[in-house]
Amino acid sequence: MTINGDLLIGASAVKGSAAAFRAVNPATGEQFEPSFSSGTVDDVERACELAGEAFDTYRNTSLEARAAFLELAAQNILDLGPQLIERAMQESGLPQARLEGERGRTVGQLRLFAKVVRDGHFLATALDSALPERTPPRPDLRLRKIGLGPVAVFGASNFPLAFSVAGGDTASALAAGCPVVVKAHGAHPGTSELVGKAVQAAVKAAGLPEGVFSMLHGDGRTIGQALVSHPAIKAVGFTGSRQGGLALVRTAAAREEPIPVYAEMSSINPLFLLPGAMDEKAAQIGTGFIDSLVLGAGQFCTNPGLVVALEGAALDRFREAASTALQGKVGTTMLTPGIHAAFNSGVEKLGKEAGVSLVARGQCGTTACAGQAALFETDAANFLANPALEDEIFGASSLIVRCASLEQFREVAEHLGGQLTATVFLVEADKEAAQALLPVLERKAGRILINGYPTGVEVSHAMVHGGPFPATSDSRSTSVGASAIDRFLRPVSYQDLPAWLLPEALQDANPLGLHRVKNGELLRG
Amino acid sequence: MTINGDLLIGASAVKGSAAAFRAVNPATGEQFEPSFSSGTVDDVERACELAGEAFDTYRNTSLEARAAFLELAAQNILDLGPQLIERAMQESGLPQARLEGERGRTVGQLRLFAKVVRDGHFLATALDSALPERTPPRPDLRLRKIGLGPVAVFGASNFPLAFSVAGGDTASALAAGCPVVVKAHGAHPGTSELVGKAVQAAVKAAGLPEGVFSMLHGDGRTIGQALVSHPAIKAVGFTGSRQGGLALVRTAAAREEPIPVYAEMSSINPLFLLPGAMDEKAAQIGTGFIDSLVLGAGQFCTNPGLVVALEGAALDRFREAASTALQGKVGTTMLTPGIHAAFNSGVEKLGKEAGVSLVARGQCGTTACAGQAALFETDAANFLANPALEDEIFGASSLIVRCASLEQFREVAEHLGGQLTATVFLVEADKEAAQALLPVLERKAGRILINGYPTGVEVSHAMVHGGPFPATSDSRSTSVGASAIDRFLRPVSYQDLPAWLLPEALQDANPLGLHRVKNGELLRG
Repeated sequence: MTINGDLLIGASAVKGSAAAFRAVNPATGEQFEPSFSSGTVDDVERACELAGEAFDTYRNTSLEARAAFLELAAQNILDLGPQLIERAMQESGLPQARLEGERGRTVGQLRLFAKVVRDGHFLATALDSALPERTPPRPDLRLRKIGLGPVAVFGASNFPLAFSVAGGDTASALAAGCPVVVKAHGAHPGTSELVGKAVQAAVKAAGLPEGVFSMLHGDGRTIGQALVSHPAIKAVGFTGSRQGGLALVRTAAAREEPIPVYAEMSSINPLFLLPGAMDEKAAQIGTGFIDSLVLGAGQFCTNPGLVVALEGAALDRFREAASTALQGKVGTTMLTPGIHAAFNSGVEKLGKEAGVSLVARGQCGTTACAGQAALFETDAANFLANPALEDEIFGASSLIVRCASLEQFREVAEHLGGQLTATVFLVEADKEAAQALLPVLERKAGRILINGYPTGVEVSHAMVHGGPFPATSDSRSTSVGASAIDRFLRPVSYQDLPAWLLPEALQDANPLGLHRVKNGELLRG
Repeated sequence: MTINGDLLIGASAVKGSAAAFRAVNPATGEQFEPSFSSGTVDDVERACELAGEAFDTYRNTSLEARAAFLELAAQNILDLGPQLIERAMQESGLPQARLEGERGRTVGQLRLFAKVVRDGHFLATALDSALPERTPPRPDLRLRKIGLGPVAVFGASNFPLAFSVAGGDTASALAAGCPVVVKAHGAHPGTSELVGKAVQAAVKAAGLPEGVFSMLHGDGRTIGQALVSHPAIKAVGFTGSRQGGLALVRTAAAREEPIPVYAEMSSINPLFLLPGAMDEKAAQIGTGFIDSLVLGAGQFCTNPGLVVALEGAALDRFREAASTALQGKVGTTMLTPGIHAAFNSGVEKLGKEAGVSLVARGQCGTTACAGQAALFETDAANFLANPALEDEIFGASSLIVRCASLEQFREVAEHLGGQLTATVFLVEADKEAAQALLPVLERKAGRILINGYPTGVEVSHAMVHGGPFPATSDSRSTSVGASAIDRFLRPVSYQDLPAWLLPEALQDANPLGLHRVKNGELLRG
């Protein structure tokens, strides 16, 4: 498929009239053909208008038609074949196997949401029977959820497929019955165009209104802000920096009609190493930690950026094993020159903070943007006194916090801001400490892991990729997994509707075979 | 029970050191004993600290203990006996039967949430089994919801029991496992103290930490803002004016950690009268409309403030029947002198708007704050051109909008802001018009009623008392009914926890008998 550098507005491919830009290979600095055109506020206007016009028709297509559309989008992405992987490799510096895996996840997400749509449980249907003899009489009440309206999705840099144009936010919004306008990430515009065209083709083949999907290129401060400000947009999905996320949150709050923003922003994903586990396997934990730290050049939201442990011989063994492992790791290409520069300056700044010392570094890589991993340490008193030590450094950098006691352990946990994940290494001898720590971690994190590493994020029903602020701007939801669809829904109650006006999901005969709550009791479909 | 005018901070009754005030009987202007003391920012601090300290213990009490606590609070409110009703009558001007009904609803809400807690379905448990043989292996993942943290609740003026100290917001937050700090409404401080002490006594008798419940008096601009700004507070429930709600939304958004605000603010609850229904029963609809309009002096969030109908003979019959009915209605006492004055000035202002004419007024009442009901009319072109005609007038005032065509009918619907309710009067001959209108109303309102009046709000599972902005600040939820609990919850995922660390709700044996989603399939408890 030819990459033309166009905006995708509804069914059209349009040349934008704002600044042109090219994709850059972060490994070589090479710029690619073609040039991409940025959109203007008029393009935002057109895409949002089409999305608004499409909403009623799209949300009222049958669940089966909506599911088939998602599956078609998935198939179209697969049908892009090796071109997609090659382009994504060139634009992101990520290796082939990783991107093939990520494509599998992206397609899998679309198919998971197709299943979620077919099941229909997300409609959360509830029926309360009329009680005409009661004083006062109770009317017939029936509840289902519907989509919020058109959703603005911001592609992330670090998952050019799975958190980008047809990633989790787009898939869950489309599943909820919401048209989507994507602001593509500038770091992988060709990858975005290929995937965008795959979705656009699925919209057309499914006979849906063209406004169901649009994709724009352009600067976040102009196109992004205009998109979030547009009255037709009713919710926002974003994965990226805290600064970028908070800017969107502010814009959404300043609208005449405020709208929800689901911004997944920053997390340092602490590991808590309890003494029993450390006594048994400090070195093994340290080696595994380094593997998790350097995975994907550390460019994961769930990268383990903090290690909390008790002073002592076991921590020395952990430190030694981690150092040895780290010194064997060769830096790999980071996503963009900007991300590479921010990583380097973050590492440099952390190394200069009072009371922080370097434990070890990985090897320099051979490409222009190779990230040289870093491990630092400090003590708990110093950590508690300096908020800068809690800042996320996007990339393979982590900080060991040495505690003098388990009390200080809990103090560090209590001190932390919201996190996507919190991990505890433990054995049964650590029971008391673990039980004391768990309630704190529940308040701090969206996911709590035992004896594992946080960098793998399963796409399933019980996953939470979310958490209290500043990990996200809205802790009430997850951006990964089946329940991500709930972010884009709202309940509507129907009182005393005649049978001929009732939505199919609420009809007496339950033609969709839904699980429904009837007079407070769950009935299986 | 003696009313002392104190703040209730945890287990203590405290004299506040800020401005003292007294309750006023709106029917007579008489001031009551005793004087109430307003709290300071220090009192807010103390209440919020206690709430924060109580959170982990409270949310980890068993579901049975939490349910029993809610039932005890309900019983304690009933045990206040006639004193509660008498005091509420004096402070609100509302009649005895209404307040007895409202007490029943308040107690019923607490008991409904006790059942919701016992059922445990709100925990939304999901389990994904480990797949150790898969590449990569899938960990064991288990999800449940937990409370957000301490919740600030603002008592509403118009339901001194059901939307106040132990009203729906408090009941649903407590049910979710969240401690509550109430800012009592200044219009019914004695009623608030009686109910607050009933809840306080239930906390003590249930052996819960004292911080589970506190209640403060004071000005919204000082105490209210301090409460919403406090770091321990993690969500806000509010029912009141748009101005008041938006002020809290702004404060919550400006915090270092933004928090959700569930503000139920303003709605004019349009009635759409379709031609077939009007041909058959215009006069009957008109009479019923007036009964709904003047109920409770029109002081309901769901009061029908707008009527949309086609020009013609049927509308003339509706207007005549409504006029006759209205002229027979004697004004009853409004809640406060301030609300009465705002109603009068709103009615006066509406009557002076260009193109608006008076249809009829009710009779003056005999008390100081009696609200004299008013019905106006205008045409659709004028309505569409003047945004002021869409403002809520809190009280018994409504506006008929005459449309020239069904097309204009839909245009008016499309023009409206978000509403709590939208009502359609129809017969089967109106099928086509109703089907065209329904998708618009779904986007505009939280509840859609057919051939009824919106002023009754059932407390059940399929009720939605919510809707798009500006009806509320968050359309994703309801403030009435069982699913109001969802507002105060967030999901947490547990990965590979040993059995001895797993929360009861997630243990293999399902000791709580919950419905659970296992590997995507719903299993009944």
